[in-house]
Amino acid sequence: MNKIRVGVLGATGIVGQRYVTLLHDHPWFELVALAASESSAGKKYAEATKWFIEASMPESVAEFKVLRTSPSEMKGYGVELVFSALPSEVALKVEEDFAKEGFAVVTDASSHRMDPDVPIAIPEANPDHLEIVEVQRTKRRWKGFIVTSPNCTITGLALTLKPLLDKFGIRRVLVSTMQALSGAGYYGVTSMAILDNIIPYIKGEEEKVEKESYKILGKFDGEKIVNASFKLSASCHRVNVLDGHTEAVFVELESSGSVEDVKKAFREFSSEPQRLKLPTAPIPPIIVRDEQDRPQPRLDRYAGFPERAKGMAVVVGRVRKDSAFENGVKYVLLSHNTIRGAAGNSVLIAELLKARRLI
Amino acid sequence: MNKIRVGVLGATGIVGQRYVTLLHDHPWFELVALAASESSAGKKYAEATKWFIEASMPESVAEFKVLRTSPSEMKGYGVELVFSALPSEVALKVEEDFAKEGFAVVTDASSHRMDPDVPIAIPEANPDHLEIVEVQRTKRRWKGFIVTSPNCTITGLALTLKPLLDKFGIRRVLVSTMQALSGAGYYGVTSMAILDNIIPYIKGEEEKVEKESYKILGKFDGEKIVNASFKLSASCHRVNVLDGHTEAVFVELESSGSVEDVKKAFREFSSEPQRLKLPTAPIPPIIVRDEQDRPQPRLDRYAGFPERAKGMAVVVGRVRKDSAFENGVKYVLLSHNTIRGAAGNSVLIAELLKARRLI
Amino acid sequence: MNKIRVGVLGATGIVGQRYVTLLHDHPWFELVALAASESSAGKKYAEATKWFIEASMPESVAEFKVLRTSPSEMKGYGVELVFSALPSEVALKVEEDFAKEGFAVVTDASSHRMDPDVPIAIPEANPDHLEIVEVQRTKRRWKGFIVTSPNCTITGLALTLKPLLDKFGIRRVLVSTMQALSGAGYYGVTSMAILDNIIPYIKGEEEKVEKESYKILGKFDGEKIVNASFKLSASCHRVNVLDGHTEAVFVELESSGSVEDVKKAFREFSSEPQRLKLPTAPIPPIIVRDEQDRPQPRLDRYAGFPERAKGMAVVVGRVRKDSAFENGVKYVLLSHNTIRGAAGNSVLIAELLKARRLI
Amino acid sequence: MNKIRVGVLGATGIVGQRYVTLLHDHPWFELVALAASESSAGKKYAEATKWFIEASMPESVAEFKVLRTSPSEMKGYGVELVFSALPSEVALKVEEDFAKEGFAVVTDASSHRMDPDVPIAIPEANPDHLEIVEVQRTKRRWKGFIVTSPNCTITGLALTLKPLLDKFGIRRVLVSTMQALSGAGYYGVTSMAILDNIIPYIKGEEEKVEKESYKILGKFDGEKIVNASFKLSASCHRVNVLDGHTEAVFVELESSGSVEDVKKAFREFSSEPQRLKLPTAPIPPIIVRDEQDRPQPRLDRYAGFPERAKGMAVVVGRVRKDSAFENGVKYVLLSHNTIRGAAGNSVLIAELLKARRLI
Repeated sequence: MNKIRVGVLGATGIVGQRYVTLLHDHPWFELVALAASESSAGKKYAEATKWFIEASMPESVAEFKVLRTSPSEMKGYGVELVFSALPSEVALKVEEDFAKEGFAVVTDASSHRMDPDVPIAIPEANPDHLEIVEVQRTKRRWKGFIVTSPNCTITGLALTLKPLLDKFGIRRVLVSTMQALSGAGYYGVTSMAILDNIIPYIKGEEEKVEKESYKILGKFDGEKIVNASFKLSASCHRVNVLDGHTEAVFVELESSGSVEDVKKAFREFSSEPQRLKLPTAPIPPIIVRDEQDRPQPRLDRYAGFPERAKGMAVVVGRVRKDSAFENGVKYVLLSHNTIRGAAGNSVLIAELLKARRLI
Repeated sequence: MNKIRVGVLGATGIVGQRYVTLLHDHPWFELVALAASESSAGKKYAEATKWFIEASMPESVAEFKVLRTSPSEMKGYGVELVFSALPSEVALKVEEDFAKEGFAVVTDASSHRMDPDVPIAIPEANPDHLEIVEVQRTKRRWKGFIVTSPNCTITGLALTLKPLLDKFGIRRVLVSTMQALSGAGYYGVTSMAILDNIIPYIKGEEEKVEKESYKILGKFDGEKIVNASFKLSASCHRVNVLDGHTEAVFVELESSGSVEDVKKAFREFSSEPQRLKLPTAPIPPIIVRDEQDRPQPRLDRYAGFPERAKGMAVVVGRVRKDSAFENGVKYVLLSHNTIRGAAGNSVLIAELLKARRLI
Repeated sequence: MNKIRVGVLGATGIVGQRYVTLLHDHPWFELVALAASESSAGKKYAEATKWFIEASMPESVAEFKVLRTSPSEMKGYGVELVFSALPSEVALKVEEDFAKEGFAVVTDASSHRMDPDVPIAIPEANPDHLEIVEVQRTKRRWKGFIVTSPNCTITGLALTLKPLLDKFGIRRVLVSTMQALSGAGYYGVTSMAILDNIIPYIKGEEEKVEKESYKILGKFDGEKIVNASFKLSASCHRVNVLDGHTEAVFVELESSGSVEDVKKAFREFSSEPQRLKLPTAPIPPIIVRDEQDRPQPRLDRYAGFPERAKGMAVVVGRVRKDSAFENGVKYVLLSHNTIRGAAGNSVLIAELLKARRLI
Repeated sequence: MNKIRVGVLGATGIVGQRYVTLLHDHPWFELVALAASESSAGKKYAEATKWFIEASMPESVAEFKVLRTSPSEMKGYGVELVFSALPSEVALKVEEDFAKEGFAVVTDASSHRMDPDVPIAIPEANPDHLEIVEVQRTKRRWKGFIVTSPNCTITGLALTLKPLLDKFGIRRVLVSTMQALSGAGYYGVTSMAILDNIIPYIKGEEEKVEKESYKILGKFDGEKIVNASFKLSASCHRVNVLDGHTEAVFVELESSGSVEDVKKAFREFSSEPQRLKLPTAPIPPIIVRDEQDRPQPRLDRYAGFPERAKGMAVVVGRVRKDSAFENGVKYVLLSHNTIRGAAGNSVLIAELLKARRLI
């Protein structure tokens, strides 16, 4: 099989570095081009990048020349698909430029998520939503297309709501998050703000969680995505944790389910990426822990099997009745915000695009 | 006015140290006796105590001889009222022994909270509940009595629910907590467990929050306390913060109230301790902040005016509509868990006992 | 006594806020003007400032209009002395402009520290160095003058070396620092860099510590400052502590001194600020602790008596023989880097300037 | 090659867990027995152990029955060599019992380190010291023997001093440490003690660092170990870092060496474990980084190549002239305290024992 040649936009930041780590030895994709801002362009990747991640920079990319963020430069390297870790304000136009020029764009930026013809994809939760790219292409007369990954806070939430929605129906969801520092970017939270502290506010986050969830868990009817009809409310908080978003979730189900039923629904959940054996698909996608004090971000954030899917599983624990509702259940979940919540989810999207022959 | 002579049980621990700090120069109470475990008894307080608190140990108590935990020893010092910071397993019997011997016992231990004839008192939220001590005395044929302070997680919650209950009625409350280390005691959480981490479990906490809230916000009918009838569900988590419990609260109101109405209800809330000008009563009891990113534990945990009431106010922020409910409101609150949530609340109880001539 | 009217340059940053806290109710100085960068000028101080400090912003300054950083604006308010918390690159020229215009400038910036006619003043360590401002004025033909406070890392070090130098003589000093986050400014260290980590490098710090120490502990001969002749080597490291620099100090003395002799030298040290009873002078300037595990930044950083001198004392502990040298002693010291190491030291300088009738 | 059957004493603690991780798939050793305290004996390892380490517990050991700490039980499993992670007060007698019964004992406990006929071994620094076990056996008439690993703080220090001693000679060493929490054991440092803090004291540590260094870097003359003759002084401090001891080292060399000479000596250092290609030997043993701000514990603690040697390399940075001495050099080093400083070093010792046919 010929590998698909891929590039990364915004390659020097936290999410960019996750892309590099996930793609440098990928079985289906060949990472051939890295682009970043003007100040980095022209330098070697190793020089342009302050490497943040524990694992070392893959040697194969250290010598890459960092490119300008331009479709024509990427074309020169035979790139067909770009992963975008651009800041949202930049992404809006740049991603469209790439899509027009025929690139498949898979992005973590929020700019296009709420466009009606653009999917917010979580491969296990809404694999068929990817098909809307055909609608998008037709309507926009683009050779390429844009697919988005959701906000990092939603990925784990939507993945765990999906089996509940399918089995029991959902009336209401309340979620309180304890989000990691890396969600704000390397320079996003100064140390003096967060030491011995919590910041109970993340700009725009609660609105995104609410809006995006309805779309992600909605249904694609062949033309458009029809939003899910449950109600969701989020309260988002930053805590002094490096990686891994922890979320306390309260759910009012439509029909009654015992704690054991709910755990079973989580444990048995499996979807298209698992059936298709996509390289980055975690098996299982949801890990349920029975200990009273898990999940914990430092211990569980790299959960996921096989090796390539580390950080791709959502870990759920403390599943218990919620006494505030007649059919209530509550649980705590943890997902790695820059892997499952960003770069890893996007790589899995790209694998599913290929498996569905959309690229 | 003659000061009432008071003692502290469990005087060497975190909450004990807060008592010492609050009482050593109290206008109504004279701190004359400190008791602790056998291993400390007989030593000077300064020797027996590993002092944890930022403010220095008051010089006046450093030379106190630590007493054994015995009613007769306390009697020798003319003590009428004891504050108890005993561990619950010890408190059960010891506090009864003191009450039988005629002491007024005000305690932070959980042992007696759910006894039907024992109040769980938050002076601003349920001042009249204190009157049940007369029922208790009669029924138990005790000369003294026991009054309890609630679990540290509830104090701030109940204080903020009270004005909502009075103004709008409450149907449902969901609360997700981010609790400080000191809530577990000085040796309660080892550093390796919590660095770069969250522990999403606190033993027995969620059950306590739920049960105690119904009682605290219930009505005393002259004979017994009739529980409040709303529903409450809690998810409790430990975070790497020294002092100050932060809580994300979602409330379904009975009747509709705008965000401004709710803020107004918080801001205008004032109760018996404020009217009576009790020395430790914070004015106002609830501080509402309009900034988007407050309250924060490191910045707000010592809120409270006047000086003596530092750490006694509950700070509320991020009051906003809750889209999960028709009449929904959500907010974030912060209260100092060892002051408002323990020693400070108990001192305020004692002041109210005196003002109501119950001691 | 008429109060001297003073202003603060760079009033919105961490050190600026310390100045405001220390000066708003000062018995000798009246704080009448606050200046900051162009983006803040014209706003109210409360609006222009993200207040970082635990203690609340003094109400008296909240309504101050923030001024532009200009001598003529300050003159309009009758200011005679300005405290500068400007960044060094800005301070170089601005402070000269103020001095030329007749202001006494007391600054925490490093720009002028190594000018031969400018003192680096620690009032207890080198009170007579202040007299060099007369040389400076004459030479530069300025109406005003510049006095500098040392780098925050040196203040505690030089204060503790001074009595050793006087009593025993010093041949060699090696110091390894564990410096607080606030030393880098509020945005100086991002949280992702320091959580579960140490950064063993602070730009330019070791060079400053070495050079400035020789000058501070040198002798003013009436014309110039003659450097001290011992040798000093520093290794500087950033740790995840909010405030308070901890330093491990190894000293080779000229003549032998027992541990008790050294402790005695520290304990008996007292200097001109104490004799003159300057308002911000800590009594004593060096606090020696005998416990094995002190000083600790969180517990000791606000050491200092009386109330106004909180954070002005240096706390020393673990005084012991140093087996690497024949006449060796080692100890650990702690000083508050933005109080004793910056704003507080400068306020004390200003008090000493007044007491010596240099202003 | 038949694998040597090995056991671990104190298998449930932090260092015990590191042993299990390093040994479960070792090419030369077969891990067949795990012993722990009475309260764990009889349980399955997975039940008896609160697993602390990020990597999951190897499945192969989860079902092991935990043994009592007894030579006869270990014999039943055909064990020839035991690794001991026992607390020192227990280790003193138990390790002798095992050695008498014919076991080779490799231990991280301090009890026997200063026995004249027991080596403190760092395989790259003093490989020939292992030969003293023949003296030990003869003298003590034991079938087995005891070899010790040094205190976790010394391993990295001695490894970096070794090439300096060989190339330039050493007159004096001063070291200031910033030690990780895991060095005190899982429950060794409570969170309230270390958050936003430093504890500038570790019981017994400085004495150990000084005494053990002289022995480790001494010479084995066939009969006894003759101590090294330089002077060393340590100041030891605990910081809020999970794993990885950082040390600031000041060295007075005998003969002059430029910074480049010193770096070269570090970089070219290689020793018997590398020549023998021992499975856990890091290549190279010392990694020199040229960036200004390295080593950092979170980024560098798992340094070491190949895979099996992760956490076994010492990372050195900031090599620079030390102006306090004529021939002075200073640097910062980092080593993983529970791998290179404990379990990993002991496994490497065992490998060297085998390669030298001492087992």
